[in-house]
Amino acid sequence: MEHWLTKRAHLTPDLVALELSNDKTITFAQLAEQAKDFATKLYRVHQRGHIAILSDNSLDLAIAFWACTYIQVPVVFLNTRLTTREWKRQCEDADVQTIIFADKYTDSMSSLPVPSYSIASIRMSTSVECPIASQINLDSICSMMFTSGTTGRAKPVMQTFHNHWSSAVASALNLGLMPNDKWLLCLPLFHIGGLSTLFKSVIYGMSVYLLERFDEEKVHHAIMERKVTIISVVAVTCSRLLERLADGHYPSAFRCMLLGGGPAPKPLLEKAKEKNVPIVQTYGMTETSSQIVTLSEQDALRKLGSAGKPLFSASLQIEYDGSRAKANQIGEIVVQGPMVTKGYYGREEANKEAFQQDWFHTGDLGYLDEEGFLFVVDRRNDLIISGGENVYPAEIEEVLLSYEGVKEAGVTGREDNKWGQVPVAYVVTADENVTAEELLLHCQEHLASFKVPKEIHFRNQLPRNATNKLQRHLLKG
Amino acid sequence: MEHWLTKRAHLTPDLVALELSNDKTITFAQLAEQAKDFATKLYRVHQRGHIAILSDNSLDLAIAFWACTYIQVPVVFLNTRLTTREWKRQCEDADVQTIIFADKYTDSMSSLPVPSYSIASIRMSTSVECPIASQINLDSICSMMFTSGTTGRAKPVMQTFHNHWSSAVASALNLGLMPNDKWLLCLPLFHIGGLSTLFKSVIYGMSVYLLERFDEEKVHHAIMERKVTIISVVAVTCSRLLERLADGHYPSAFRCMLLGGGPAPKPLLEKAKEKNVPIVQTYGMTETSSQIVTLSEQDALRKLGSAGKPLFSASLQIEYDGSRAKANQIGEIVVQGPMVTKGYYGREEANKEAFQQDWFHTGDLGYLDEEGFLFVVDRRNDLIISGGENVYPAEIEEVLLSYEGVKEAGVTGREDNKWGQVPVAYVVTADENVTAEELLLHCQEHLASFKVPKEIHFRNQLPRNATNKLQRHLLKG
Repeated sequence: MEHWLTKRAHLTPDLVALELSNDKTITFAQLAEQAKDFATKLYRVHQRGHIAILSDNSLDLAIAFWACTYIQVPVVFLNTRLTTREWKRQCEDADVQTIIFADKYTDSMSSLPVPSYSIASIRMSTSVECPIASQINLDSICSMMFTSGTTGRAKPVMQTFHNHWSSAVASALNLGLMPNDKWLLCLPLFHIGGLSTLFKSVIYGMSVYLLERFDEEKVHHAIMERKVTIISVVAVTCSRLLERLADGHYPSAFRCMLLGGGPAPKPLLEKAKEKNVPIVQTYGMTETSSQIVTLSEQDALRKLGSAGKPLFSASLQIEYDGSRAKANQIGEIVVQGPMVTKGYYGREEANKEAFQQDWFHTGDLGYLDEEGFLFVVDRRNDLIISGGENVYPAEIEEVLLSYEGVKEAGVTGREDNKWGQVPVAYVVTADENVTAEELLLHCQEHLASFKVPKEIHFRNQLPRNATNKLQRHLLKG
Repeated sequence: MEHWLTKRAHLTPDLVALELSNDKTITFAQLAEQAKDFATKLYRVHQRGHIAILSDNSLDLAIAFWACTYIQVPVVFLNTRLTTREWKRQCEDADVQTIIFADKYTDSMSSLPVPSYSIASIRMSTSVECPIASQINLDSICSMMFTSGTTGRAKPVMQTFHNHWSSAVASALNLGLMPNDKWLLCLPLFHIGGLSTLFKSVIYGMSVYLLERFDEEKVHHAIMERKVTIISVVAVTCSRLLERLADGHYPSAFRCMLLGGGPAPKPLLEKAKEKNVPIVQTYGMTETSSQIVTLSEQDALRKLGSAGKPLFSASLQIEYDGSRAKANQIGEIVVQGPMVTKGYYGREEANKEAFQQDWFHTGDLGYLDEEGFLFVVDRRNDLIISGGENVYPAEIEEVLLSYEGVKEAGVTGREDNKWGQVPVAYVVTADENVTAEELLLHCQEHLASFKVPKEIHFRNQLPRNATNKLQRHLLKG
């Protein structure tokens, strides 16, 4: 297939690709040109392996990303909220040989053992002759993002161009495609919910309003005044927007608030309905290149709490005890479809476990009702979702256990009005002098702030089952 | 991928799939159920090879077609306007082992050497146990339709499920997808322009208003009163609709009159613009599973006469003398994309000629302007398009030459107010007693009526080039 951005620039050169909050806009022709120009500069410093990008949402990030596709290098997206130690690990695990970053991260770069360049410095450097891809090889890896399982180290998810293409197409077949569509992008581009919108922009020929981050004032204003028709949100941001809306109403052109990234509390959905906010619930993950199950607006009330039905090109089953579950029987959610990842980069064992008979095992629990609507009961057993970010207990436990005097550690999620959930830790110590304060300090050093436990409780023992496996669900309360 | 109709019936069971002119409707759940039921009856009579369907547009035809997909048998669509002799040939060429037909064609069936069953008789027969496909294998052949080259016998074009899927997706990305879309289908289902709408219906979850044939009163009424938003037309039918519209206006919900199937005369386009009819010009053929190049409405006036730009997943080049032509240089139109056929069934030679370096050579002549808009100069050199039907001179010449006393024959197209073009024949006879009347009678016996020459001229010789190849373009006048 022709390179998507080149093709789009050819089809609708003068259409606005990205609109920024400073009122700057860039057309598809300009975006393609600037991405190609950046590619010829990036090519000088990058020889082999993958490129990591560390940046908050910005036009620069979009240009740098498309530049990488022009020189056919997979992009590893780094979460800006992680610590240097976490970035270092991820670079090792994803074969990153070059990091490009936004200026504000300059200070963190010195401690990383990978050549790094600020996006600004690359832009000011000289171009070299280099092959600019005219085609896209659908089967090659476009991007990687990290996700953790319930056990151990975060894993790099490989997303091919075909995954992203299929995701954009499946979403269009489900939500429709209007000539006046404008998607507000305020999720981080290093999350699939953000990145997927960039592909939609280019594949659909649709303007995207790009915000650096979620800011309820800016988002509210954009929906009210800037002719935004669709926005992706998570429960926390949705809730804040509804509060900000107060007794007001969104314009009728605003047609979809796509709600993903974790369970949606029923009171929130009811409140949205009251205010006539067109919520479309969805279920998806990094491994499915964003949505794979979506509840249409017309079913929203009748099936309150359901994530909907699998998109047209996707399939879903509930597996219980190795075979297909009956209606209303809870089991593991397994999925199939062209938007599902080929696997984790360099993780043979994890891939063997996750992929069985062409089905991807999500680790999430749920059931299908008689009509085939999915209800997600629990995300990946112990997964904590805090403000739309995945927080994996195992990772926090590992950090706690690395502290001298900690014998056992267990982490679980606690309901939180603001963030949905926050992590809470339970520890058994060998040494009575270990304090909660020093453990928190230790966590702050080694973990992104949203992963740092909000409480630390000391126990004599932790609940374990017969095989001594930690039973995190018994930690609650 | 899950079987499309089964999947659609699962996603939106109660949505109307087809609306008929007698006000009957059928939902996707009913369509799937009836197609599966028909499949279990069809399975009893069909053992191997392909199934041909001979029918005008009807609900029965749609059910029979989907039934064939459930028992995984490719469907050969027979043009109802051909003669028994032509159907016989096509059945031989496409390995047809079973014909199913609409009642009105019963009389023609006795002379065909293939077992044939009326759709009604199958419906009334008993079911047998048979495997109903739950999946669609995208790479397998879904349908075949015949098309001729400039030389010789019509060739069966293989259309895979992937071709049809890609065509439906590419069209949606180009035209958009509105929740209230309803497509009026009045092109024959044995033409790709008709059949492709059936796939759109199921893939998009869109109601289709199915007419037996083009009838300007019914079509006009449907656009005015039945909330139709899109219709596919050819130049002749477009022109009749505009006349019928007179000084009226279509409702604003009617958003697209997709004009394909041959060159669009400029006066027609100007007239449409005057009446605010949203014409979207398009270029495509059986081998590209319908549209592959489309002119958007916003460019319609500025690029009057252009067929537009290739769809997002498609590519197009102009080839001149074996290499890529410059802007505005006329050459052969070659195309690439997932909607392009894998080839002609059982025609190795023709495939070698048509496919070179992954490009399909259309045989049509055209050029790209500086902005990359396609202008089709001539369809397949000598192709005559009469009322949207392809008429190939070589086929008519063959019939004329088969008449005792005819030494040479040449056929070309003449402009015609009603049909766009009509075939006109030029013959050289060995015997002065051969009359135009007896030649016409002979043609009527062997050719579909739209292929019978409207005039027969006698000549002493026909224009030929140095290698003695007939120069049909010099026959004109």
